[in-house]
Amino acid sequence: MSLILAADIGGTNMRQAIVHPSGELIEETRSELALSCFGTEAEMIDAIAGQLSPMLQAYAVTAVGIGFPGFFDAHSGHLIASPNLPYIHHLPLAERLQARLGLPVSMQNDALCAALGEHRFGRGQGVSNLLHITLGTGIGGGLILQHQPWSGETGMAMEFGHIRIRQDTSARRCGCGNHGCVEAYASATAITEMYREKTGESCPAHFICRQAREGDAFARQLWQQAGDALGMAIAQCVIMLDIHHVTVSGGMTGAWDLLHPAIEKGLQKALIPPQQDRVQVVASALNDHAGLLGAALLACEQRL
Amino acid sequence: MSLILAADIGGTNMRQAIVHPSGELIEETRSELALSCFGTEAEMIDAIAGQLSPMLQAYAVTAVGIGFPGFFDAHSGHLIASPNLPYIHHLPLAERLQARLGLPVSMQNDALCAALGEHRFGRGQGVSNLLHITLGTGIGGGLILQHQPWSGETGMAMEFGHIRIRQDTSARRCGCGNHGCVEAYASATAITEMYREKTGESCPAHFICRQAREGDAFARQLWQQAGDALGMAIAQCVIMLDIHHVTVSGGMTGAWDLLHPAIEKGLQKALIPPQQDRVQVVASALNDHAGLLGAALLACEQRL
Repeated sequence: MSLILAADIGGTNMRQAIVHPSGELIEETRSELALSCFGTEAEMIDAIAGQLSPMLQAYAVTAVGIGFPGFFDAHSGHLIASPNLPYIHHLPLAERLQARLGLPVSMQNDALCAALGEHRFGRGQGVSNLLHITLGTGIGGGLILQHQPWSGETGMAMEFGHIRIRQDTSARRCGCGNHGCVEAYASATAITEMYREKTGESCPAHFICRQAREGDAFARQLWQQAGDALGMAIAQCVIMLDIHHVTVSGGMTGAWDLLHPAIEKGLQKALIPPQQDRVQVVASALNDHAGLLGAALLACEQRL
Repeated sequence: MSLILAADIGGTNMRQAIVHPSGELIEETRSELALSCFGTEAEMIDAIAGQLSPMLQAYAVTAVGIGFPGFFDAHSGHLIASPNLPYIHHLPLAERLQARLGLPVSMQNDALCAALGEHRFGRGQGVSNLLHITLGTGIGGGLILQHQPWSGETGMAMEFGHIRIRQDTSARRCGCGNHGCVEAYASATAITEMYREKTGESCPAHFICRQAREGDAFARQLWQQAGDALGMAIAQCVIMLDIHHVTVSGGMTGAWDLLHPAIEKGLQKALIPPQQDRVQVVASALNDHAGLLGAALLACEQRL
């Protein structure tokens, strides 16, 4: 049996799974891995290899696929840059890990991996074109065009979190330095921050979700505003690409009952009339495994 | 010698040319054709066929290619809809003209034809991915991805004029019904309208361009605002698609000396920092023949 080790590396933790090419997850683990703590490439490579090692020893794995928060060059496969690792420029990270592990290693942007997983195994199955949004502490996006991942000229395509929904300087400031990015209104970080600004309390987004469900007017307003922002940003993608299928994964989909009606409202309001009522926005049903499954697909395709 | 009859049909006029497959324009004519005056499909087809007839009689043409202001289905090739012709839904326009003319007829959206022409013969030559903007009384766009035209699920991709650069309801209203579309700030119609609102005088955009060059502060401000709006809308495309080449054609490029610095400023301001200084925005050097050349290419490719 040919097995894949798939990993989904985030800013603060790493998930790994042994995946059968059919999409079945055989074993999954999660561990802490704070990317920003590493001062050199070598330290980071050591840490990733170290974390992968137990599963590699326990299973007869034939290839490794990794989703990573950074931008990968379409031609060389090199990691061009990563918001968490300012010292990295054009690092052949997959090659280095491959030399270290003695197995083929494939890597791609984490949100693009999630798009691949959702397209092959999730609610994007069977569609030619898919926008996948990862909605968590930050907001990412991955694009499938004509059944193929679209990474752009320098691996930076579909920076969904940085689509601007307001252009004025009174709009909320985003971590990227600009004002009015959708991430500044609809990420878990933004929800927490806006709640703290109003109430003085620092609470996680899932608490603010419960507050909204229990009738807290301000909490409800925050989720409505987040959904509206997401809908407006999705509309910009539809106006440009005329794609009709959108899937959303990530921790914030736990508040889908609050978000979805506002997304629909924001989307319909911002589309041009002939495009209205054509776009389906659905929450992933993969239990947040889209990224791992996409990373496994990368590895499978590389081995062909 | 194999010749193509190419036509570029606008809302109020029609240009035609005899084109050699090398891209050479052998003869070009322009005539009036007010699409919105036709009450039925049959009347419109009669009029288009009538206008094409003299050139078809004068030259040994082997195929006809037409750029048309409407949305074409990628699979059937049918004209799904056209803003100028509200009574049309899913019309096999190319097939009808083909039956009428006794020659192969290929049709596509006019802005996408311009993108094709610019990509093969203009300043988009040699690049894999291109955003082409048609800047005239209205604003259109065409997208080339991996050397291929991208028309989207229903032929409506890259409605560049309707990218929103402001979302507030105090933003200018666009012809599509929404507020804050780039077309409401940067089309010739918008420039004329904003000048009239302030001065009471109704002048064409080229007059307001001359005013600006002669130092009229308000006229300068209008062109700066238009360039800024275009730059912000281009930035949204780059954030989503990570494409680095943009070409602009159409009558408004006559004011490129006024527009270009403002486009650059608006673009750099709205891009996320790692994408800055990578994007080239240039005016077409095809003397407004991009659309005709693209229509000729359609016909050539259809015949292969």
